[in-house]
Amino acid sequence: MNIKINDAYALIDGKIDRHSIYITGDSISGIDKMPEGFKSEKTIDGTDRLVIPGLINAHTHSYMAPLRNIADDMPFMDWLLKGVYPVEDKMTGEDAYWGAMLAIAEMIRCGTTTFNDMQMHIHNTTKAVKESGMRAVICRGLVGDKYDREDVRIKEAFEEMPDGEDTNGRLTFRLGPHAPYSAGFDYLRCVADIAKEKGLGIHIHLAESLTEVEDLKKEQGLTPIEYANKAGCFDVPCIAAHCVQVTDSDIELMAKKNVSVVTNPASNMKLGNGFAPVPEMVEAGINVCLGTDGAASNNTLNMFHEMSLLTLIHKGTHRTPVCIGAAEALKMATVNGAKALGLEKTGEIKAGYKADLAILNIDTPSMVPRNNILSSLTYSANGSEVDTTIVDGEILMEGRELKTVDLERILYETNRMMERLS
Amino acid sequence: MNIKINDAYALIDGKIDRHSIYITGDSISGIDKMPEGFKSEKTIDGTDRLVIPGLINAHTHSYMAPLRNIADDMPFMDWLLKGVYPVEDKMTGEDAYWGAMLAIAEMIRCGTTTFNDMQMHIHNTTKAVKESGMRAVICRGLVGDKYDREDVRIKEAFEEMPDGEDTNGRLTFRLGPHAPYSAGFDYLRCVADIAKEKGLGIHIHLAESLTEVEDLKKEQGLTPIEYANKAGCFDVPCIAAHCVQVTDSDIELMAKKNVSVVTNPASNMKLGNGFAPVPEMVEAGINVCLGTDGAASNNTLNMFHEMSLLTLIHKGTHRTPVCIGAAEALKMATVNGAKALGLEKTGEIKAGYKADLAILNIDTPSMVPRNNILSSLTYSANGSEVDTTIVDGEILMEGRELKTVDLERILYETNRMMERLS
Repeated sequence: MNIKINDAYALIDGKIDRHSIYITGDSISGIDKMPEGFKSEKTIDGTDRLVIPGLINAHTHSYMAPLRNIADDMPFMDWLLKGVYPVEDKMTGEDAYWGAMLAIAEMIRCGTTTFNDMQMHIHNTTKAVKESGMRAVICRGLVGDKYDREDVRIKEAFEEMPDGEDTNGRLTFRLGPHAPYSAGFDYLRCVADIAKEKGLGIHIHLAESLTEVEDLKKEQGLTPIEYANKAGCFDVPCIAAHCVQVTDSDIELMAKKNVSVVTNPASNMKLGNGFAPVPEMVEAGINVCLGTDGAASNNTLNMFHEMSLLTLIHKGTHRTPVCIGAAEALKMATVNGAKALGLEKTGEIKAGYKADLAILNIDTPSMVPRNNILSSLTYSANGSEVDTTIVDGEILMEGRELKTVDLERILYETNRMMERLS
Repeated sequence: MNIKINDAYALIDGKIDRHSIYITGDSISGIDKMPEGFKSEKTIDGTDRLVIPGLINAHTHSYMAPLRNIADDMPFMDWLLKGVYPVEDKMTGEDAYWGAMLAIAEMIRCGTTTFNDMQMHIHNTTKAVKESGMRAVICRGLVGDKYDREDVRIKEAFEEMPDGEDTNGRLTFRLGPHAPYSAGFDYLRCVADIAKEKGLGIHIHLAESLTEVEDLKKEQGLTPIEYANKAGCFDVPCIAAHCVQVTDSDIELMAKKNVSVVTNPASNMKLGNGFAPVPEMVEAGINVCLGTDGAASNNTLNMFHEMSLLTLIHKGTHRTPVCIGAAEALKMATVNGAKALGLEKTGEIKAGYKADLAILNIDTPSMVPRNNILSSLTYSANGSEVDTTIVDGEILMEGRELKTVDLERILYETNRMMERLS
């Protein structure tokens, strides 16, 4: 569909000014200047509206959305072993589908257009992504010990991949070795070798908790970062989630190897893991992007909440108000996410780029006055301002009404599922 | 008006179950059991609704709401002297009125029913409070050096007080000596003496920044807490905002003197002041409540955002997930606030208590599943779930539509004001 967004505030090149944006098919075809032969099929009035690049949630586990309240206020290993795993084990593929749908509904409502997902039930998240129209990177979580190319999970990961073919490139895949404590060294090396051969990226949890670091140091004499590097994970495009407990030399190594780090402020605090050294990683030149993690450790999937945390907590830990400002947080939540996930022409409002956009209603008390809208975006907005969400040129929400998924059914199914599972 | 809220989830005594709530005039007249002779004039359907006590914002500066974006990413003293003061100085009384109205509109939309305000333009916030129907504690900010009972600001504070008479007790007053660095010792002693004589409480900023503590230590040999105590501030009901940089003996002193502390997580991080030792203050038995501070240092007045920060940051600093949980955060944002402000029969859903309530729509993705709604309230809700806000039995918002203030006019006036002032 050809869409014209008429005279709205728009975040372009880090600045907010009034612009008109033209969308042709899946892409932005012009800014201010109407493309030749453009015939608008739909015009969106830009009065009191702000257009931003769709937000990129660079680390989550969408199927876990219904697990959001099951294990609050528990130590990390109890949370995982006594809280999450027992419920997760009972989830069927259909449960995972409805779980992913709940996550997708929540994300669309908060202006997220892309998510990087580590999941356990193949085909189900991809089905939800295809039906909903979201953009996603799918990684089957991989857990094992041996160097085994015939490992059932690795085979499953590949079995799922062709599913993306009919999505106009919205669906891409990575290999998702879970973490150093769940993927033994030989297994990790096997996954990295396959990734190299097939030209795939890797998505892994690294250095999330102090326990993980201490245990690995004791067993292998390596930090989680050194361990992943030694196994070959950093020889392919690698996105590392968390990186809370990292040393200066870990940071140096990740910068040298072009590893992208996804920081997850809420999850890291909620599980008592602390604060990632984000300013230091940025300073070292690492591409840092932003993610919510799964709902079991957040408990929401709202990237506005995450941006707000990102801009606040490091000012607190570093005792300075001049640290990770609004512009930087927005960059992490858009441009840097696209770069980390290898998504070309995504994450910015530019002619020729994918039409992945969120349109906010800024005629609300917390977004007034309009003297510094960029600042309002991270310090005041809570996500409920998002009125319209567009992915790949398709309108997924308008007037806060979801267009491609049945919200009532999703809420019904996930409520019922958790009555059964918990 | 007699209102029946029919069969809704409700937060009563720290637990959430389904209840019907009866409101007669300004008070809750029954729970589950209809009061004798009750004739409902309005019934609110409780399907998919959660009723909570209205949130109490125990420290803010409402007139500063339009200043929300003017001085981001600046060191504290620059923020105050170069960012805030120059704009503040240009504000007229009418500007302060519209500023307070902007704050009130934002707060009503997020389920806040009471705020404790330190302000500089008398009569204007009280006018906004009276017109809007909010509950507020008004404190004229007091700044000076000498022991002077005829000080112009102190006289202004008393000049304003009778304004509260026609508000059914919604409006109360305290004396608001600004802070140790702006209220000299003799002046503070003078204010404390007057408070004692008149039976008034005190509202003061204490130990917000490290600079404040170091300077006072150098000049007076006292911590801000010791200084305020020595001046007599703790001999009356005292609510102390911030208390970020406090020692163990400061905490012990405040506990002994029954000082209530308002913690302001967002503001303390945003200005680079750090994290208040909230778990330690709670442990010591201090009544800790919650506030947003003014919008110039937050930049929002959303108590849901503040509750979320409160439950997350201390888990991060203390490296444990078992620290300031959902129930405790809600208590700080309701019961403890009422106690700190000396508001009787306020802050809980109980027969005979004031009908100050927020009704949330929990039929949204982030509030599903309903296995632990208490947890959702602090970890998932962002304030946009609030559908209806009731203060003193009057409906101030319903279906997210503000009933007592003209939102369009407020947004227009405050946008125009900041074009003029900045």
